[in-house]
Amino acid sequence: MFAKDFSHLYSDECNRRNQDKLSALFAYAQRKDVTFLGNGLPESKYFPWQSVSGTCPTPPFANGIDSCDKSTDTFSFQTMKNDNSNSKLGTCGDSSFNLARGLQYQAIEGQPAVLDFIREHLKIIHKVGTHYQDWDAILSIGNCQAFDAIIRTFCNVGDFILAEEYSFSATVNAAKAQGIKPVSLKMDDHGIIPEYLIELLDNWPADLKKPKLLYTIPTGQNPLSYSLSTERKKIIYEVLQKHDILIVEDEPYYFLQTGEYVSKNERKEVKFNNHQEFVDSLATSFLSLDNDGRVLRMESYSKVLAPGIRLGFIAGSSAILKKISAYHLMSIMAPSGFSQTFLNELLNSWKQTGYLDWLIGLRHEYTLKRDGALDCLLELIPKELIENDVVRVSPPAAGMFFTVELNAKKHSKFNGDKNAVEDYINEKFIEEGVIVAPGSWFAVGNPEEIKDIISSEDDGYIFYRMTFAASELPIIQEGIAKIANVIKFEFK
Amino acid sequence: MFAKDFSHLYSDECNRRNQDKLSALFAYAQRKDVTFLGNGLPESKYFPWQSVSGTCPTPPFANGIDSCDKSTDTFSFQTMKNDNSNSKLGTCGDSSFNLARGLQYQAIEGQPAVLDFIREHLKIIHKVGTHYQDWDAILSIGNCQAFDAIIRTFCNVGDFILAEEYSFSATVNAAKAQGIKPVSLKMDDHGIIPEYLIELLDNWPADLKKPKLLYTIPTGQNPLSYSLSTERKKIIYEVLQKHDILIVEDEPYYFLQTGEYVSKNERKEVKFNNHQEFVDSLATSFLSLDNDGRVLRMESYSKVLAPGIRLGFIAGSSAILKKISAYHLMSIMAPSGFSQTFLNELLNSWKQTGYLDWLIGLRHEYTLKRDGALDCLLELIPKELIENDVVRVSPPAAGMFFTVELNAKKHSKFNGDKNAVEDYINEKFIEEGVIVAPGSWFAVGNPEEIKDIISSEDDGYIFYRMTFAASELPIIQEGIAKIANVIKFEFK
Repeated sequence: MFAKDFSHLYSDECNRRNQDKLSALFAYAQRKDVTFLGNGLPESKYFPWQSVSGTCPTPPFANGIDSCDKSTDTFSFQTMKNDNSNSKLGTCGDSSFNLARGLQYQAIEGQPAVLDFIREHLKIIHKVGTHYQDWDAILSIGNCQAFDAIIRTFCNVGDFILAEEYSFSATVNAAKAQGIKPVSLKMDDHGIIPEYLIELLDNWPADLKKPKLLYTIPTGQNPLSYSLSTERKKIIYEVLQKHDILIVEDEPYYFLQTGEYVSKNERKEVKFNNHQEFVDSLATSFLSLDNDGRVLRMESYSKVLAPGIRLGFIAGSSAILKKISAYHLMSIMAPSGFSQTFLNELLNSWKQTGYLDWLIGLRHEYTLKRDGALDCLLELIPKELIENDVVRVSPPAAGMFFTVELNAKKHSKFNGDKNAVEDYINEKFIEEGVIVAPGSWFAVGNPEEIKDIISSEDDGYIFYRMTFAASELPIIQEGIAKIANVIKFEFK
Repeated sequence: MFAKDFSHLYSDECNRRNQDKLSALFAYAQRKDVTFLGNGLPESKYFPWQSVSGTCPTPPFANGIDSCDKSTDTFSFQTMKNDNSNSKLGTCGDSSFNLARGLQYQAIEGQPAVLDFIREHLKIIHKVGTHYQDWDAILSIGNCQAFDAIIRTFCNVGDFILAEEYSFSATVNAAKAQGIKPVSLKMDDHGIIPEYLIELLDNWPADLKKPKLLYTIPTGQNPLSYSLSTERKKIIYEVLQKHDILIVEDEPYYFLQTGEYVSKNERKEVKFNNHQEFVDSLATSFLSLDNDGRVLRMESYSKVLAPGIRLGFIAGSSAILKKISAYHLMSIMAPSGFSQTFLNELLNSWKQTGYLDWLIGLRHEYTLKRDGALDCLLELIPKELIENDVVRVSPPAAGMFFTVELNAKKHSKFNGDKNAVEDYINEKFIEEGVIVAPGSWFAVGNPEEIKDIISSEDDGYIFYRMTFAASELPIIQEGIAKIANVIKFEFK
């Protein structure tokens, strides 16, 4: 089976991208049978780094990844510029990557050693290749850059896309700046409501072009922290299939699946007896349900390794990825060779099992933080405020965030004016010395053309997004105490 | 004096870019007086690199940078994640950059330590700040990415820009893909012909919008290797000032100013007695002539340090740079923290004087390679082919390239059909085992609307671009011998 052809959805810009004959010459630079006077490649002897090295913790991180930061159970690697047989200082696995290559112009798609690791990882986690065989992965500079490249490959000015009604502002702003019109999809406690999506698309005005793609953050949604169930994903996939719409799944938090929140007394520690149990516990992705090659999965190393690496990948149909690479060729070219070198040394030393050990450790850490934050929040918010529909808390099962919802109508001032209450309470939070993100900042809104067909119910709640990620738990709990103080005072 | 306001030239996309309230919260993450529950920043203890290190040559590179690759006169640095007082292993200078910061989310504009170095460098080389004070620099991921971001900030679909008639295909293709229409500027042996530019703009059709910007590679132009004189730059600047047009100078080869080619017998080695003599020898940039803030200068570390670092910068009016940063915020976010860490350790160890030593060494190396390539070429091409207007060679004074021009009319086949001759001779080069870039690949062309006002003379020459950069000189000379063989056979 092969991926379907989605070339009728490409943007004008994508269709205007010329094949660059010049960059095709790079392929000759490595060949021994020709003399290469083609591209302006500097000789590697002029690269002023003779070697780079790094020290990293060694799997399986038996004492947890929290302590491995200071652990002496580490390995070191050194990547030499002039040594093909990569000098090894440590003991953890093998890797082959010479710095002369890491510092030269990079393959647009990414270094083969890095991509091979990612492809193998995708087979393990998402069983790619079982539905259609012409899939692939290419590197990106994180999910914002990946999304920018994807929408420039599919959308023209005036095109519609679908998005969760509250969503990540950087990506949504990128779409709006490009003149693309995001249409909000209503959500409940489990994410996008499939019935709403069906109604919207079945009643889509005949004189408007259908949306080109759905942009969704299925796991630990930002800002609302909900995760879409497999059941909903299957329905959504079929609906979008029917309407010829692509799916872009933005998954920075996929490996932060902290599981259902269980109250302190009944909590049991989740232990995985082996890697397969961990893999089986993970959410079914849109990518793994994809028969058509209509899903583009964006993953980032920002949350699982480090944001400063500025590396991620896009997985999907290789025909589509080629079009995205054609844009990369005339913009970013490729991600940093330093980042790729350090990622390669890490992952190919750890190997797939070591990386899974890391992800299991990370899941454990974020579960402790999620539990510690939510325990504190539920303890400090008076029960009667919850029972009287003043405050709503829906503990997250994934991601870095939790939300506190407040009923604006229950505030003594502003007559239920949500914006006014949101601003006012946020000022009180700042006065109390705690910084959070007001929910309205994430509101996607709707374009004029669509407003008629959208029934807008409003339950009068506002919300604030908060993270348990950015500090040690005691500090997060201090912040939550400040939040609770303001709420108690304002809604007493 | 302050930069002029060019906001009337901004693109629709630029004007639609929202200020992102969410990213503004990052500023609170460092503050001690508030509890930060704002953005999804992972704690640095979960970054799996405890330290990174590198080894680099030590200035002043007294034996040349060619030998310093294997030199033992090196220094090493180590950047620790958990150590604020950056552990030093070597002796070359000081720097402060902790890996926890290098691996966290980066400032969109770039790390202050890196930007401070670049600002100081720009003052030394281009005397920025003397004409207008509100200038600045921001990091980019190389000049292709910088140009992509600049044209998205100024150009709408259908807008015109000016470019050299032969130019770098990746940037020109990026503009064309965006629906921007590049207009060719005629060149002679000294680059853009000012009189041609004046005539073109004075006769610009009244019903068409003026071009938004000039895209130029002033030093060691790609592909033609010409460098614009200061005199021409001043005229061009005034003409563009009159017509309200911006200048984007793409300067990857600026520090490869190999000087006039002097024939082997009369050649004397150029020696700089001090750094100032070197600085004084450098071309006057458009940036240094800029009174208005209409120049955006793009520089890359690809040719002077290493392409894989994927780092460069844009210098110009800070008001314009803010608009470009607003795009970076919703796409690349910031260049790799690894790249910034290794650049910072290098440059802030070398300091400005050490970096100038490096650039002087690099200039020396490229001069040797340019001279060795041109000596060989002029020796192997029979004099009578040059005297009889069959072959033209214009030795370059900067950059990585040289060209061989051939008179298509003098070939026995194809009746002077330039495309046919170009393809045919290129095939012969490949058969002979040498890879070059045919000139037509760089032809910018002209949009339909402009063709009437353009007088097109054609002298019947085709050209091939060749580089002396990509290999050691003996290999380059092997390639040149193959070129000469083909030419001698085909035009005997």
